[in-house]
Amino acid sequence: MPVPALATSFGIGTDAEANKEFLKLNPVGFVPVLVDGDVVLADSFAILMYLEEKFPQHSLLPKELHGRGINYQAANIVCSSIQPYQNISILKFMKEKLGPDADFAWARDQIRRGFAALEKLLKDYSGKYATGDEVFLADLFLAPQIDGAIRRFKVDMDEFPLLARIFEAYLELPAFRDAMPERQPDAPAEHRD
Amino acid sequence: MPVPALATSFGIGTDAEANKEFLKLNPVGFVPVLVDGDVVLADSFAILMYLEEKFPQHSLLPKELHGRGINYQAANIVCSSIQPYQNISILKFMKEKLGPDADFAWARDQIRRGFAALEKLLKDYSGKYATGDEVFLADLFLAPQIDGAIRRFKVDMDEFPLLARIFEAYLELPAFRDAMPERQPDAPAEHRD
Repeated sequence: MPVPALATSFGIGTDAEANKEFLKLNPVGFVPVLVDGDVVLADSFAILMYLEEKFPQHSLLPKELHGRGINYQAANIVCSSIQPYQNISILKFMKEKLGPDADFAWARDQIRRGFAALEKLLKDYSGKYATGDEVFLADLFLAPQIDGAIRRFKVDMDEFPLLARIFEAYLELPAFRDAMPERQPDAPAEHRD
Repeated sequence: MPVPALATSFGIGTDAEANKEFLKLNPVGFVPVLVDGDVVLADSFAILMYLEEKFPQHSLLPKELHGRGINYQAANIVCSSIQPYQNISILKFMKEKLGPDADFAWARDQIRRGFAALEKLLKDYSGKYATGDEVFLADLFLAPQIDGAIRRFKVDMDEFPLLARIFEAYLELPAFRDAMPERQPDAPAEHRD
């Protein structure tokens, strides 16, 4: 089965030539980008839904509608109610306008608000993972978000016992460990394992 | 066919009693919220995907994977790269920290960035509407976003000819006109038609 190519960083912002090549491929300029023949998609949610529909034999969603809906909602809390508030251009704006520590303080507030919502949403549905004992779409958004909250933004996870517990479960999965940023082939040397 | 109930405002923020009732129903506290039996979903994307899967006879997505992916991406540019930057709590924060006009200036910048990305993304796919001559998921996110950009944030649409053109097409559809905020049963009197 041909595997579509997924670029996650491509030297964007640091390498002008790579930047130009990337924009030729993906005029919208966002990362990550998936390229599969003439299909170019640059958005985590769109990419995962495309892979879900192209490879239904490894479904990222439960079969019943209610569980699917909870997965969509949890994923979207991460990508619409947390991630936008911690992206690089917003943090830069906050730092410039409000002082050197304002960016992380701001991001932490937004992450904590989102995590509080996720704790409430998932309390009736979680098992070993976010929505049961299988890894589904919600987990794919939660794993990097919780990792970033802990390591980058120093969020205290004691407030969020459900998320802390499922994150421990993610760390036992080789697929999740291998997806860590420092293990990617284009990770800068200082971030490597 | 039983129609699920959809609450879009419910007096949140203005009516303490309504607020309490709403939080009992939806502990996460976000709007809109869909209630369908014991399914409670509070997120536009999750709600639309749930309706899509429950009522496949009126599909919101094209049949082929590429077109579906473009719809997911366009919808998610609205809900992850524009909407979070213009929501009420962020605008309030900006106004308090940076002065009385900073909120709208900030929101306009983010809307323009997102619209520029959408113009590039959709140029090879648009027809009468965002991804062809049928209304699909992307259009459902674009219609209220463009309406808000024009009426609330005074964004000059001359910069965005594709979006301006498809918005004109939306205004000819009774379903879109009837979905305008001022036509909702719980719209405050001063905003009614």
